[in-house]
Amino acid sequence: MVTLLQIQAAMGRIRESIRLSPLVHSEALSASADNQIYLKLENLQRTGSFKERGALNRILTLTEEEKSRGVIAASAGNHAQAVAYHAATRGIAAQIVMPLATPLVKVSATRGYGAEVILHGRNYDEAYQEAVLRCEQKGLTFLHPFDDDDVIAGQGTLGLEMLAQDPALDVIVAPIGGGGLLGGLACAVKELNPRIAIVGVQTARVPSMIRAMAEGAPVKVDAATTIADGIAVRRAGERTLPLIRKYVDEIVTVEEEEIANAILRLLEGEKMLAEGAGAAALAAVLGRQTAHRGRRIGVLVCGGNIDVTLLSRIIERGLVQDGRLVRLRIHLSDHPGALRRLCEVIEAQKANIVETQHDRAYYGVNLGDTVIDITMETRGRGHVEQLRAALTEAGYTHERVQ
Amino acid sequence: MVTLLQIQAAMGRIRESIRLSPLVHSEALSASADNQIYLKLENLQRTGSFKERGALNRILTLTEEEKSRGVIAASAGNHAQAVAYHAATRGIAAQIVMPLATPLVKVSATRGYGAEVILHGRNYDEAYQEAVLRCEQKGLTFLHPFDDDDVIAGQGTLGLEMLAQDPALDVIVAPIGGGGLLGGLACAVKELNPRIAIVGVQTARVPSMIRAMAEGAPVKVDAATTIADGIAVRRAGERTLPLIRKYVDEIVTVEEEEIANAILRLLEGEKMLAEGAGAAALAAVLGRQTAHRGRRIGVLVCGGNIDVTLLSRIIERGLVQDGRLVRLRIHLSDHPGALRRLCEVIEAQKANIVETQHDRAYYGVNLGDTVIDITMETRGRGHVEQLRAALTEAGYTHERVQ
Repeated sequence: MVTLLQIQAAMGRIRESIRLSPLVHSEALSASADNQIYLKLENLQRTGSFKERGALNRILTLTEEEKSRGVIAASAGNHAQAVAYHAATRGIAAQIVMPLATPLVKVSATRGYGAEVILHGRNYDEAYQEAVLRCEQKGLTFLHPFDDDDVIAGQGTLGLEMLAQDPALDVIVAPIGGGGLLGGLACAVKELNPRIAIVGVQTARVPSMIRAMAEGAPVKVDAATTIADGIAVRRAGERTLPLIRKYVDEIVTVEEEEIANAILRLLEGEKMLAEGAGAAALAAVLGRQTAHRGRRIGVLVCGGNIDVTLLSRIIERGLVQDGRLVRLRIHLSDHPGALRRLCEVIEAQKANIVETQHDRAYYGVNLGDTVIDITMETRGRGHVEQLRAALTEAGYTHERVQ
Repeated sequence: MVTLLQIQAAMGRIRESIRLSPLVHSEALSASADNQIYLKLENLQRTGSFKERGALNRILTLTEEEKSRGVIAASAGNHAQAVAYHAATRGIAAQIVMPLATPLVKVSATRGYGAEVILHGRNYDEAYQEAVLRCEQKGLTFLHPFDDDDVIAGQGTLGLEMLAQDPALDVIVAPIGGGGLLGGLACAVKELNPRIAIVGVQTARVPSMIRAMAEGAPVKVDAATTIADGIAVRRAGERTLPLIRKYVDEIVTVEEEEIANAILRLLEGEKMLAEGAGAAALAAVLGRQTAHRGRRIGVLVCGGNIDVTLLSRIIERGLVQDGRLVRLRIHLSDHPGALRRLCEVIEAQKANIVETQHDRAYYGVNLGDTVIDITMETRGRGHVEQLRAALTEAGYTHERVQ
């Protein structure tokens, strides 16, 4: 099992090559969470996540011969970019096996850092098998994303760093995928200050560490899609489970909508882009998943590599939830001037029309009438109420499209 | 005219109450810009912009009597939030006049910081008139957003701060609205180190400082919509123009698409949310608007208060430009199974369909045929080419919808 000494040694190795990410207080989030919230912004690392810590520490413990033969990893995500970047800066050849369906932006980023990318397999497991095979065939060193003591010790440096930045923290909340981050962090923190409570957060869709804790050993849980893809690890680590068991006080889960909401809060309030896994810890705190109140809580924002397509959808759903984007289905009589009159009512309420769709044959519309779905930007829920009241007053039958 | 001494005095006043925002090197942006790029992240101030510096310095120079009577400002933007927040923390009553159409989020944020918000007028000029009127009637002190020496001196503290953070900067690039930020900053920097080049950036839509420089006095330019609304100031300041004239080496302009692209680069690459005005300086550097190459450039990211609705549109346009979102108009024969067969071709190319629309009567479609507009997510331009080649091979007539 990883020890504090190993984590301190890792810190000595990687310190110069890793950014000291800020630990920032947020007044707005503190007010929402009934706790004092300090965000540890690992999304600001060069490759966009904390994964550099473990990858670099592992790379720096390679023998000269291992370095000359090169390394290999299987990952479509942050570990890939971390390995690619730090291997390249040390002049070590790196191969990264990614599933065939990996988005081009992630492939390009990994290649851009200097790694050779091999696209192989329909999913992570198939890519992983290919990497293991290449390892054996070519004598490369396999860099596991979490189930490796040097990787765990590297991630654990986050704990040392947070204690140095703010020794008065009462609680630290961090996400769990395979458990490398939380295992290392919890070990560092608890060995130095057992008073600090450590909370782990999993996506409710892939609760592999919770299952492992219950069963006493890692078990494979069902695959599931989640916006927190960075922590969608189906089987906890053999090396990480004992650390979690020994040092972590509590593991909680968060739902997709909570994660999406936390991403939006970070973006709008803190001007920070977080990926799903990066916002999971904040989601747990905002969702009152723990009983801590009035405490000083360090919340890990572990990464920011989110596809902007997904971000755009998260924003749109958030706007719909806030009532800032609303779709109303309005019944109209089907004659010239009908739409003009409706538009006047909407204009008087200062809503901005962004999309319209007519229909004459569905939704139980009367013959000779039409329905129109109008999507509008508004100033929020109160504005929607006011708009609907004005439509009713003007004689329109209407309903909200959910 | 504001002096270095006034800016240094401002620094002494506000230092304790303003965040020391980071100055961060970006390898990716440096590579794109052929310069070493250091981002000064004023979007991380509490209220999301640099405006706190000037507003707070002005507030701290009020007499006790002025403080007890209260202050007023006209703004729908960052100045409003800055005044609201810092007046409230000093226990000073603040009124903010905002145009009627101000988005609810901005009204709520300003109220949330503790100011009384008065919604008045169809545009900024009408809100401004109302604020001046209230000033006279009630003896309030009017806090101008830029044309005020205490405000200019407050913004100038940014120059002192950047020099302290990195004395080796060769160039500083910052946006110009009314000129308060750039006037103060340029004065501080040039008085301490005349070797540093100062570049100002305006949106090409509202080039009021460029016009003022040409005419020798502030003139009112035409109103225009721009995503850089924070610097869409129609008339340069009387107090700022002489500073710009004396200390600024060059003023350049940027186009809307360049600003949108810079916002996306900051978001995807740096995990930072910037508003249009906040990304304008970076847009100028990425767009090679200045002749500097191989230099150490401090680029001001002055604010991050962008409406997420607008952000969502910017992302979507960026995806279309990159070919990551594409709409193809495809001719189909109108019979059962036609769409299934087309979908198979698209699935084999691994594009993700997000929207479809059939049409049978327009776009010159043959009788008995139909056209379908299919919007798809792809992995980029190369993937689009490959997809279109597959469609051609399968016998489909198709064109790209722009």
